[in-house]
Amino acid sequence: MERSFRYEAGSIDSREGAFGIGKGTAIRIALAQLNPVVGDIVGNTDKVLDALRRAAAQKVDLAVFPELALFGYPPKDLLLKTKLVEENVKAVHRVAAACHGITAVVGFAEPTGRETGRPLYNAAAICRDGDVIGRYHKCLLPTYDVFDEDRYFEPGDRCDVLNLADAFGREWPVGISICEDLWNQEQIVSHRRYPRNPAADLARAGAKIIVNLSASPYSAGKDDYRRELFFAHSTRHSIPIVCVNQVGGNDDLIFDGASAVFLPQNRLVARAKAFEEDLLLADLGPNAPAARIEKYPDRLESIYAALILGTRDYVRKCGFKGVVLGLSGGIDSALTAVIAVDALGKEAVHGVAMPSRFSSDHSINDARQLAENLGIDFRILPIDGAHTAIESTLSDAFKGREPDITEENLQARIRGNLLMAFSNKFGWLLLTTGNKSELAVGYCTLYGDMCGGLAVISDVPKTTIYELSRLVNQRAGRPLIPQSSIDKAPSAELRPNQTDQDSLPPYDTLDTILKRYVEDLQSADEIIAAGFDAGVVRDVARKVDLNEYKRKQAALGLKVTSRAFGSGRRMPIAARFKP
Amino acid sequence: MERSFRYEAGSIDSREGAFGIGKGTAIRIALAQLNPVVGDIVGNTDKVLDALRRAAAQKVDLAVFPELALFGYPPKDLLLKTKLVEENVKAVHRVAAACHGITAVVGFAEPTGRETGRPLYNAAAICRDGDVIGRYHKCLLPTYDVFDEDRYFEPGDRCDVLNLADAFGREWPVGISICEDLWNQEQIVSHRRYPRNPAADLARAGAKIIVNLSASPYSAGKDDYRRELFFAHSTRHSIPIVCVNQVGGNDDLIFDGASAVFLPQNRLVARAKAFEEDLLLADLGPNAPAARIEKYPDRLESIYAALILGTRDYVRKCGFKGVVLGLSGGIDSALTAVIAVDALGKEAVHGVAMPSRFSSDHSINDARQLAENLGIDFRILPIDGAHTAIESTLSDAFKGREPDITEENLQARIRGNLLMAFSNKFGWLLLTTGNKSELAVGYCTLYGDMCGGLAVISDVPKTTIYELSRLVNQRAGRPLIPQSSIDKAPSAELRPNQTDQDSLPPYDTLDTILKRYVEDLQSADEIIAAGFDAGVVRDVARKVDLNEYKRKQAALGLKVTSRAFGSGRRMPIAARFKP
Repeated sequence: MERSFRYEAGSIDSREGAFGIGKGTAIRIALAQLNPVVGDIVGNTDKVLDALRRAAAQKVDLAVFPELALFGYPPKDLLLKTKLVEENVKAVHRVAAACHGITAVVGFAEPTGRETGRPLYNAAAICRDGDVIGRYHKCLLPTYDVFDEDRYFEPGDRCDVLNLADAFGREWPVGISICEDLWNQEQIVSHRRYPRNPAADLARAGAKIIVNLSASPYSAGKDDYRRELFFAHSTRHSIPIVCVNQVGGNDDLIFDGASAVFLPQNRLVARAKAFEEDLLLADLGPNAPAARIEKYPDRLESIYAALILGTRDYVRKCGFKGVVLGLSGGIDSALTAVIAVDALGKEAVHGVAMPSRFSSDHSINDARQLAENLGIDFRILPIDGAHTAIESTLSDAFKGREPDITEENLQARIRGNLLMAFSNKFGWLLLTTGNKSELAVGYCTLYGDMCGGLAVISDVPKTTIYELSRLVNQRAGRPLIPQSSIDKAPSAELRPNQTDQDSLPPYDTLDTILKRYVEDLQSADEIIAAGFDAGVVRDVARKVDLNEYKRKQAALGLKVTSRAFGSGRRMPIAARFKP
Repeated sequence: MERSFRYEAGSIDSREGAFGIGKGTAIRIALAQLNPVVGDIVGNTDKVLDALRRAAAQKVDLAVFPELALFGYPPKDLLLKTKLVEENVKAVHRVAAACHGITAVVGFAEPTGRETGRPLYNAAAICRDGDVIGRYHKCLLPTYDVFDEDRYFEPGDRCDVLNLADAFGREWPVGISICEDLWNQEQIVSHRRYPRNPAADLARAGAKIIVNLSASPYSAGKDDYRRELFFAHSTRHSIPIVCVNQVGGNDDLIFDGASAVFLPQNRLVARAKAFEEDLLLADLGPNAPAARIEKYPDRLESIYAALILGTRDYVRKCGFKGVVLGLSGGIDSALTAVIAVDALGKEAVHGVAMPSRFSSDHSINDARQLAENLGIDFRILPIDGAHTAIESTLSDAFKGREPDITEENLQARIRGNLLMAFSNKFGWLLLTTGNKSELAVGYCTLYGDMCGGLAVISDVPKTTIYELSRLVNQRAGRPLIPQSSIDKAPSAELRPNQTDQDSLPPYDTLDTILKRYVEDLQSADEIIAAGFDAGVVRDVARKVDLNEYKRKQAALGLKVTSRAFGSGRRMPIAARFKP
């Protein structure tokens, strides 16, 4: 049976119970959680059409897609390309043309057509009976952290309720919102960035369901925060909220999906898969059948899943068939290799050990053992010949000077050169293996171990690296990462008997200070006041500030914390200030 | 004689002629064009206080300082550091305490004190008689190109006129504006980004002078545009405009100063020096004595001056005493060396030639000749030993494969390693020597010739490199840059008989296409429609898009065009679209 609806703009007066749905059978909603490629408007539209077909076959009334689903999020300055904007407008009409017997709400970038202001709206098209029968414009535009929406978009000024009515005369007043529109709840958000609260506006205007088209980047713990937020809105306004989130990795950002339906009194009645595409059907209304509720992984599992998805998508969306990485025998490169294998399969991963005169035997053995455990391609290229040659090239120039960090960096840069040669020769993407703690204090070599197209774990603090490594081995039921890689004192092995703790405080101290300074934006004084050693705090903070220049040239890194070194943190370099 | 004023907020009714100044003697304004270090609030405040003292000694009535003068522009995420914001608020009171017999208008970041919205205003403090007697909040916040002001600031909502009245009862209604506030003139700006026009609001409110605190980044041709804009406002509203611009290099942005007083009918009555600090006094009013009008350099001279200032300030503000660069014998490294010498003095510049088996004799000779001409430290380090060693390290892995770009990159990366060794050993900043045309199409080696902390000419198209090199020799009155470096076919010399034009279209064609595609955001179709070869255009555009990943890790480069690869251009990497 095909159902038929008519659309009326405006608000309605009648409210019919907490579910907001009229008498009779339930409304069936499809949460179309897709993984778009940024800019690939034809490909993304094909994905939308495919999901629409599958939803229609299941007698879905309303199919909801993520924010900017046709463009992929975040499109960044591709939004300044008029040609792509025109393509995405045409794509909306392709979607509308496919809507018969089903209503679709799909995110796109809509030209404002006005002579002043930003040129676009971050919009949702309501598609029905072959036409675009309505439009909604995002009201709250995030311009903080990784978000730059004021750069491109005018805010919408109306919170419309759409009256979708079926052939039996039932009215379904649906309030449309886009992502940030619902991130403004004074009980939850500590600092309200906006004077408006679209959820309240929609409820006041008579909405009986709120749908939220979302592209909300993952960070550890964000799902808890998101649930708390949506439950608060739902409970306060006695209204179900249907949130459809993008999934997939786009450059540094990972979208975790986990689209869900939130009911008042913290009742979660449907949830899509985390970290993969899904088409979740949910019936809303009296006596509606139960929907699927997928498990959301715990904190550590979610970080691991995010890193796999981010790695897989970056490699695939860039068109690489394989990756290469240096295996030092240490825990960072081991964990990166395991993630790469989980993301891409063992055939796609190539490990290279590059021992120098300072490398210990156990390092090479640990690297070899890891490669064997994973079943990946592995080779050993000693760098001593190149090391000696480059030292000899420099010997006149450096005559009479003591060895220092210069000589350490030479080795790291020879390794970078070799790994990039593999990347160039075989078309493998080079994965960078440094962690966040190192990158924060500059304990890494620019153009050396910082070489690579994707820094898989550069937003993972060293203490979390240990947690993840234990998790990996526990899941495998065997020491996939050799136990000695986990147990031994971390070392760059760039001079005899070197360990990280020659230069750095213990990692648990370091990571705690770094979280406060980098993620929570505390000053050195505040951290000291919290009980940390003043000398250590000032030294760590100074190192963070001094190393902006290195991070300026760092590989793109997958964001998993609340503040990564990357697009969400924009520091000047030639600056002068006390931390 | 000390002059004394009182302050009244609000608008006034009387208008007294085109100059807006009451009867009697003229008002004396100091345009305090300072070069701040971002974040160095104590140092910047000292500069402000010093300029205030010098102005007071000259019986100045009103001293105007640049936008965010106490913080330095652009402060970026330093604005999220509460401690620094508090320091800059304290600094305002230091400035106010020094204001006796003189009024100062100084830019700072002011906490809004409100519970919603962005936490700060981009503000001007009006300081007088030891107090902050008024405040203005920037109304139009640029959030496009290199600007991110919506990330930090709430817009002001009032265009106030300050009535500064002197001891004789003369009223001087001054309208305060900050930078972008005056960048919204429908005759001039093609697309008005804002619904408001503060210049018109201030004129309507009775201002007889408008002062504009500015931090307006240089690009070639911008001074013409700026003059046209300010003259248009001044003429339309019959009002003098006093624009005080920041000067100096802050990371990629260069501020050219050239603060000026604009009168109706395109009368420029005062202009400060371009590209250096200045304290310019201008008397406004009937029979006022003439002020200094400094020449603004022509287009090519201005680019050259900008590169010198940008290089000098980046090196000094980062605390480096010297720089090192590779000298290939080619025109790019030669021009970079000349700029470095002009910026820092010849003692601070160190050149290294690193010939490989593919380097021609004339290249080494040209490099040596250049170094002699400049009188700089110069050494030759052949890379053949390291090259052979690293090839031998890779020989097993690459057995049976033809040489390709991999082998070319090996050499560039050995050079990068050697140059970074000089940087590490002697504390010299490595200058990158690549030009914009190369960087656009990826004709450069990541971790090779792209190594360096500052890319001096990475926003200069190759055709402009030639123009600048001829200018340099013309100014020197001799071939400072060897004529053969200018005349010979450009080559990377990474394989036998290689020239750039093996891989690229002629540079004049390439640069024209690049300007259209990168700076003017034209699509490939639009460029082809303008008469360019379709195959060439699509190939160039595709290369630009494919090489986002390289530019992600490029050194910070000095911006001199309307759109540089840098903070004003934000492209996704793992994207898929047709140009």
